Amino acid sequence: MDYQAVLEEVAACARPYVGQGRVADYIPALERVSADRFGIALADINGAVYGVGDWQVPFSVQSISKAFSLALVMAHAHGDDDIWKRVGREPSGTPFNSLVQLEWENGIPRNPFINAGALVVTDRLQSLTGDASTTMLHFLREESGNEDLAFDQAVAGSEADHGDRNAALAHFMASFGNLENPVPSVIEHYFWQCSIEMSCRDLATAGGFLARHGLRADGSRLLEAREAKRINAVMLTCGTYDAAGEFAYRVGLPAKSGVGGGIIAVVPGRCTLCVWSPGLDARGNSVAGAAALDHFTTLTGWSVF
Amino acid sequence: MDYQAVLEEVAACARPYVGQGRVADYIPALERVSADRFGIALADINGAVYGVGDWQVPFSVQSISKAFSLALVMAHAHGDDDIWKRVGREPSGTPFNSLVQLEWENGIPRNPFINAGALVVTDRLQSLTGDASTTMLHFLREESGNEDLAFDQAVAGSEADHGDRNAALAHFMASFGNLENPVPSVIEHYFWQCSIEMSCRDLATAGGFLARHGLRADGSRLLEAREAKRINAVMLTCGTYDAAGEFAYRVGLPAKSGVGGGIIAVVPGRCTLCVWSPGLDARGNSVAGAAALDHFTTLTGWSVF
Amino acid sequence: MDYQAVLEEVAACARPYVGQGRVADYIPALERVSADRFGIALADINGAVYGVGDWQVPFSVQSISKAFSLALVMAHAHGDDDIWKRVGREPSGTPFNSLVQLEWENGIPRNPFINAGALVVTDRLQSLTGDASTTMLHFLREESGNEDLAFDQAVAGSEADHGDRNAALAHFMASFGNLENPVPSVIEHYFWQCSIEMSCRDLATAGGFLARHGLRADGSRLLEAREAKRINAVMLTCGTYDAAGEFAYRVGLPAKSGVGGGIIAVVPGRCTLCVWSPGLDARGNSVAGAAALDHFTTLTGWSVF
Amino acid sequence: MDYQAVLEEVAACARPYVGQGRVADYIPALERVSADRFGIALADINGAVYGVGDWQVPFSVQSISKAFSLALVMAHAHGDDDIWKRVGREPSGTPFNSLVQLEWENGIPRNPFINAGALVVTDRLQSLTGDASTTMLHFLREESGNEDLAFDQAVAGSEADHGDRNAALAHFMASFGNLENPVPSVIEHYFWQCSIEMSCRDLATAGGFLARHGLRADGSRLLEAREAKRINAVMLTCGTYDAAGEFAYRVGLPAKSGVGGGIIAVVPGRCTLCVWSPGLDARGNSVAGAAALDHFTTLTGWSVF
Repeated sequence: MDYQAVLEEVAACARPYVGQGRVADYIPALERVSADRFGIALADINGAVYGVGDWQVPFSVQSISKAFSLALVMAHAHGDDDIWKRVGREPSGTPFNSLVQLEWENGIPRNPFINAGALVVTDRLQSLTGDASTTMLHFLREESGNEDLAFDQAVAGSEADHGDRNAALAHFMASFGNLENPVPSVIEHYFWQCSIEMSCRDLATAGGFLARHGLRADGSRLLEAREAKRINAVMLTCGTYDAAGEFAYRVGLPAKSGVGGGIIAVVPGRCTLCVWSPGLDARGNSVAGAAALDHFTTLTGWSVF
Repeated sequence: MDYQAVLEEVAACARPYVGQGRVADYIPALERVSADRFGIALADINGAVYGVGDWQVPFSVQSISKAFSLALVMAHAHGDDDIWKRVGREPSGTPFNSLVQLEWENGIPRNPFINAGALVVTDRLQSLTGDASTTMLHFLREESGNEDLAFDQAVAGSEADHGDRNAALAHFMASFGNLENPVPSVIEHYFWQCSIEMSCRDLATAGGFLARHGLRADGSRLLEAREAKRINAVMLTCGTYDAAGEFAYRVGLPAKSGVGGGIIAVVPGRCTLCVWSPGLDARGNSVAGAAALDHFTTLTGWSVF
Repeated sequence: MDYQAVLEEVAACARPYVGQGRVADYIPALERVSADRFGIALADINGAVYGVGDWQVPFSVQSISKAFSLALVMAHAHGDDDIWKRVGREPSGTPFNSLVQLEWENGIPRNPFINAGALVVTDRLQSLTGDASTTMLHFLREESGNEDLAFDQAVAGSEADHGDRNAALAHFMASFGNLENPVPSVIEHYFWQCSIEMSCRDLATAGGFLARHGLRADGSRLLEAREAKRINAVMLTCGTYDAAGEFAYRVGLPAKSGVGGGIIAVVPGRCTLCVWSPGLDARGNSVAGAAALDHFTTLTGWSVF
Repeated sequence: MDYQAVLEEVAACARPYVGQGRVADYIPALERVSADRFGIALADINGAVYGVGDWQVPFSVQSISKAFSLALVMAHAHGDDDIWKRVGREPSGTPFNSLVQLEWENGIPRNPFINAGALVVTDRLQSLTGDASTTMLHFLREESGNEDLAFDQAVAGSEADHGDRNAALAHFMASFGNLENPVPSVIEHYFWQCSIEMSCRDLATAGGFLARHGLRADGSRLLEAREAKRINAVMLTCGTYDAAGEFAYRVGLPAKSGVGGGIIAVVPGRCTLCVWSPGLDARGNSVAGAAALDHFTTLTGWSVF
């Protein structure tokens, strides 16, 4: 398949959606990004990378980092499934956010991709490695081959200034005994991870292990095939906030979105994609990004279904 | 692949789980079924059928019928997506059942596989065809090639005797204007559909169109490929009650379960499976059935991820 | 105290609020009532009655009937507290209506004045008397001395036409085993009770037993003093929908409101009041009626606090 | 009325309940208190005090302090009702705690006596006075005439060690902009207030202004009569956790309970009572304390209804 031609057709189809939606405005550093940006990149399992538009422009990864922190916990735990005693694997399934569900379920978040769940995963990664955010940064540098990847201090600082809701989630879970490290430390690492700046190119290559059934860029094994497939399963059922069902219906690929406007998607055995456009729909997913992935699976027929 | 050998190995692996769990006991006709039953059947996309154990013994399809009624509405609506204005596509995501969610969401059920959503789908099928339950019965006879398929009057009658919760759901949706037909008629057709008795063989063959991207057993088209894929997507995210995330994680196939102990599962482009064992776990899915499908994807590597 | 002068001053103070709010419009017979109506009546414990404005104009009692059905169940049960095993005594405390709470609490309504609770009370009255609605009508005729009181067939019929939500509540409770009589019969009696037409004069006199600590108009005992006080307590904590706290704060009297625009209020040991004005606030209580009662307790100092 | 005799009879009636229930055990300083304690005191509006049993033994006031902080905010705000824009007046009405409701209601607690509401009241008192907890301590010393009243540092420290849930509440409200002071400061003052040690005698006298319609012990005015009545109204509808309806039904007096086992109750125009016994029922109210107050209103007929 001529990936470059496919991406160009996808970009053309997605063009009318660019600028639609609303750019995340809860922190200044995100608000300043232009709504007109659009980029898409595809990394095949052999490491070839294709791209269109703003595919080499860095943006804030935000919640896309949650897929990587889950993978790193599974990798560092060496098959020890203890994380699943502390976080579920079910879609959150309600417009109400996770505090309600945390309460119903005694401090056990529904899944690792809602904020509460991601805090637990970060807490676990911190315990396993001693430095959750640096571990992730190094991993992303190695897999993307981009040594310039860095935390964005302004973004991380802004998050902390607006971090009362995450502090509430963390203290609430702590009240149920579901955090191993001090609340401020867990929140800080979580914010650092979210603040990393990466381009579509960086993310598509860094997420390659999900398409390669667990193999890293250098051919070494990060995860068992079974584990990589399971991360894909969690991405498909929980990766796009409260729109996971809709996303599976329209796109049909495992994916993880972030409020920076990025979405990473996986075609198992074939390739990893990343699309970016900052305008978000009401549920927090990139409008043009979702449209692009919809066109991609329509053109290629490569949904998992 | 030697399907018969695979099924035999799967059955052997699942054997220790047969008899575990709890047989549905809310109506006498279900309660009487022996917990020791186990059968599994596989129909490949060319119509060849393989089976092990009690694969030719009829059981009550119950909620498995919901996958067929959704497909029939999509087929009879000829691409008209109106049903999706009346029912969502998101996982229900809460241990609390659908009345709470109906209230939060103004009478629009979260998805077509929770009871409330299935009542809306049945209501729509009734409007489109004039006789929802007979339409389904005829379709299942043709696809399975088994002209003996029939409603079980005892089961349908028992459901009606214990039908206050479904009546509550239907009246509640009617209060929001989300039913087109009278409540008693909708409930009656719903109960008839659930009461149909089919074997693993019957269900695996009848569900073949989901693996054939919309083509019926005789090669004619029931659904567009896109539509068949979308039903698979809804099955994967919503098909196994509140355990859809867990099921995607462990098994990784689109599936629909019923409290009769049956589970139908789809390997797109390859085959449709049906497994049956009456002992249910706390979320209403067959214990041995889920174990069997887990072994199947482990052996074959054929999860969608 | 010169009750007539007090009522006239109260009416003058409430005048600016008359016409504010929204007349109930879910059934035609209620919608037709003019928003400009205002009446207030006071019956002292010796049977003297005072009134101002439209105090002799009949209106639909609606939920005010719930206070009388609770009293009649307690009277007919002769101190048997079984009703409290089937309905709670706690304020409902959420803008979400009772279906959510019914589900959380396994079919036991929070209190006898939400619709679900009133259906249980009606069901119990039906079991105790064989004819719940006729029992109430006869009681209201006797206590008010108005033999012309009657059901309003148009209102009762309209309620039934729009009765899906109450049917949902009743079937839902039946699914938990919390109804003794068939759902259609309970709903019918409930609608008949709500449809009774009474004036402020009629209601203030009929509710006199609540101010007389259980004694009827003829001096005979309907309820023990302890029981009458307890009905007052339930009225104060639960009698004005989701505004009971606000009502206690502003008015400080036991009260029961209805969507017909009436409110009955009790000054224990002194008098019973009824005020009527059809414009409702967002929580379903008469705007001018609440203002009038607020002025009344300010003028007299007769809140219970 | 011979108050001493009444209290002795009440104490005798309550005796069988002493030791029932469960002593609060979430902090060591509370857990150490013997379950066998029982005291009751009554202060009439003229300042005479009567008592029985352990009525002069200090205990941890805990949530009883919430009634005083509300009164102090109303007193210092001089009729400015702004506090009611930040906290509601409705009973919480659900066994689920306030995080769920905070979320439904955008950071506005249902009432000032649930923890979230009390944090808002403390925050307001801090803004009005510059030192919320010291203001309260001085007030309680003056009204009780007991200059020895003091914070219990061990209790306040233990609360802080187990304070994750309150921290979650405070951060959550801060995320909605509903706190004026820094979270740690609000929580600290809140814990200090709860840690004050007082006897039944101290509390009954300190709460005298609620029975005297706003007049302090020295005859000066703390609150308008209307304001004092309104605090009584909030106590009656919200003062005993999720059992306010039950408490109004059984006892019929405005009351505020604490997990230290104390309950303060008001007979408007007559007297203030305080009862103490550490064994709590499932909803956090003293078992023997509630029984004592029930007997008191039965003996005297002095419920507000």
